[in-house]
Amino acid sequence: MFEQEIREKARQAGQAARVLAGLSAAEKNGALTEMAGALVQETPAILEANQLDMAAGRGKGLSNALLDRLLLTPERVKDMAAGLQEVAALPDPVGEVESMWLRPNGIQVGKVRVPLGVIGIIYEARPNVTVDAAGLCLKAGNAVLLRGGSEAINSNKAITRVIAAAAERGGIPGGAVQLVESTDRAAVNTMLKMNGLIDVIIPRGGAGLIQTVVQNATVPVIETGVGNCHVYVDDLADLAMAESIVINAKCQRPGVCNAIESLLVHAGVAAEFLPGMLGRLKERGVEVRGDRRVKELADWVKEATEEDWGTEYLDFILAVKVVDGLDEAMDHIHRYGTRHSEAIITKDYQRARRFLREVDAAAVYVNASTRFTDGHQFGFGAEIGISTQKLHARGPMGLKELTTYKYIIYGDGQVRI
Amino acid sequence: MFEQEIREKARQAGQAARVLAGLSAAEKNGALTEMAGALVQETPAILEANQLDMAAGRGKGLSNALLDRLLLTPERVKDMAAGLQEVAALPDPVGEVESMWLRPNGIQVGKVRVPLGVIGIIYEARPNVTVDAAGLCLKAGNAVLLRGGSEAINSNKAITRVIAAAAERGGIPGGAVQLVESTDRAAVNTMLKMNGLIDVIIPRGGAGLIQTVVQNATVPVIETGVGNCHVYVDDLADLAMAESIVINAKCQRPGVCNAIESLLVHAGVAAEFLPGMLGRLKERGVEVRGDRRVKELADWVKEATEEDWGTEYLDFILAVKVVDGLDEAMDHIHRYGTRHSEAIITKDYQRARRFLREVDAAAVYVNASTRFTDGHQFGFGAEIGISTQKLHARGPMGLKELTTYKYIIYGDGQVRI
Repeated sequence: MFEQEIREKARQAGQAARVLAGLSAAEKNGALTEMAGALVQETPAILEANQLDMAAGRGKGLSNALLDRLLLTPERVKDMAAGLQEVAALPDPVGEVESMWLRPNGIQVGKVRVPLGVIGIIYEARPNVTVDAAGLCLKAGNAVLLRGGSEAINSNKAITRVIAAAAERGGIPGGAVQLVESTDRAAVNTMLKMNGLIDVIIPRGGAGLIQTVVQNATVPVIETGVGNCHVYVDDLADLAMAESIVINAKCQRPGVCNAIESLLVHAGVAAEFLPGMLGRLKERGVEVRGDRRVKELADWVKEATEEDWGTEYLDFILAVKVVDGLDEAMDHIHRYGTRHSEAIITKDYQRARRFLREVDAAAVYVNASTRFTDGHQFGFGAEIGISTQKLHARGPMGLKELTTYKYIIYGDGQVRI
Repeated sequence: MFEQEIREKARQAGQAARVLAGLSAAEKNGALTEMAGALVQETPAILEANQLDMAAGRGKGLSNALLDRLLLTPERVKDMAAGLQEVAALPDPVGEVESMWLRPNGIQVGKVRVPLGVIGIIYEARPNVTVDAAGLCLKAGNAVLLRGGSEAINSNKAITRVIAAAAERGGIPGGAVQLVESTDRAAVNTMLKMNGLIDVIIPRGGAGLIQTVVQNATVPVIETGVGNCHVYVDDLADLAMAESIVINAKCQRPGVCNAIESLLVHAGVAAEFLPGMLGRLKERGVEVRGDRRVKELADWVKEATEEDWGTEYLDFILAVKVVDGLDEAMDHIHRYGTRHSEAIITKDYQRARRFLREVDAAAVYVNASTRFTDGHQFGFGAEIGISTQKLHARGPMGLKELTTYKYIIYGDGQVRI
């Protein structure tokens, strides 16, 4: 039965998408504002639904961290509404003619930005993703089919009811925002194979969810999220700068994909740099796992295993390795990295240039924290996720990355000879 | 065993790709020229290998059309070499910084074009694809893993041996051009699931091959090729222009994806336009299949079935329908089209504008033949295929579409607050 539900909702979304593609930025912004107002106004109903999920979550023994992700408060609802207002204030990428040229036979060929169509978003516990994703997709002219985690189903239903109705009042065609209400796990698989009805799937969540989507989808997918990021401290680095960047990249928010998991240090400065650095990390509650050369400098450090180099801890744990130079550092990053965000700390011009050119990752840094890999930090104003694949979009994805293009051709009767 | 072969070749391709990404345009162009020279010089060995495939093909009873696709001649080898020279002459997209901006905290964020990495090309009978694909992939800085049809295996082996050796002499790292030599059909499936070793798969061939790839790949795919294209003749059209465009779009080369399969005609001009138009098509050997209103105007026309509207004939067959206006035409195109190339013939400004805006296809035309949807015709200088999906690339794909981008960030010690 869920198959019928999803197919019907995707079909409605597809019809809405045709109309949505032609709406002006002013029309879409008006609807987003209407949605933001409705969220605040209907806060009590949303919180009530959220309480059902919280009670069920407690009953199922969800961890406190998960329960906190699930929890909605008046403040959090207000934040979701503010997020929609921010999206309304962003420039609309749709309709931009990126270039137009004249061919020798007189046809004029233009490349114009258009919506993707119907976007499927598959996500986990946080109910705020329902609002964020719907707002970004609508602003870029797309219909959206949402499939949140079963733990948040009551919250997501309430939120979707409120924003879908407000969107329609605001002039968005009905069916543009849809929630898959079946919590059957097989429902996800159905979405993943809806070629022709869903144009793109974006998974948002942990590595398990993302792998399920990548392994099973026949609809094109934008893979997001997993980040095994490194900072490499060169022997020609400003060591005070290096320390402050390592602390920031590891400790400021360890549970996110652009935090670092490994620190690589040039052997030439290891003795000078590491004892103090590792002490500072320890003070901040970071568990350090080091290779042999690290342990020689700080015997309290736990020994790193092969597995550590490839692990995204998302926690106060850091793997540390001493390397003999830039080449070894880049080889290590190539072998274990996930092509997300990588940084070098150096004062050397040529090494900075080599690192920028030779490291293959969505974001490559010189002398800055990897924590800047983020749509807001890059200046995109918003973010639907961080792509770790190479097709279509790489790194932080904003509104433009939720669009595609088409060619428009103006002729005067030209035929091909 | 083929699994081991493919894995090892993909691994070597990956190593080569790291080096290739850093080569200059001059270095890559030198290698392409070397490859072109080697092809011409080793023509006898290539033709000898091709004769093995031709003999086997005749033995298996391949059709004359397929045998002609398979056949290599000194002229065709020379054409392949000339193709490589053309690719060498094109501008190199790699390294272009598309934009760079300064953030309020002083970090400088740039978006730079880089190769995709390892590209898998899965194709059918024509051995020239081996050369075309290898040349385009290398020029864009990618390593390539080729998997041609089993009918062409001896030709492909000989060609790959020649161009891979020449590429290496020309300074391209060994392993950058690889052919999967196993003709086991399961070898394709192995390639399709090589996430982490192959960055992108591009299928080139018929609908069957493309569906196999789309349905089974876990590696990101760029879907190419299927085109159920339409011309809509408005009642405000220049009918002489309409006739010449319809003849061109149907007859100039019916076996390709940008030829039209259906003609839609406004009821207001059907009586004036269709009898002459259909007669002209008949003269050229086109079988016409029409709806009731078409048959009323030309009783010799075969009746179109529901299936006709959705069929890519790739042949001298045309489905013809009378519609009541622009909306019905666009609805029909939305329902049956494959989002490839669609054209309106009209003198009306507003209808032209609506068609361009509202029709969802890779290429949307006013008053020109759909046959222009092609990398050379658009001015890209070359083409690896025509994408019919919306992710990454749409329509003709040239060198730029064989690249991705990464962000480079210049800092002075910035950390995230």
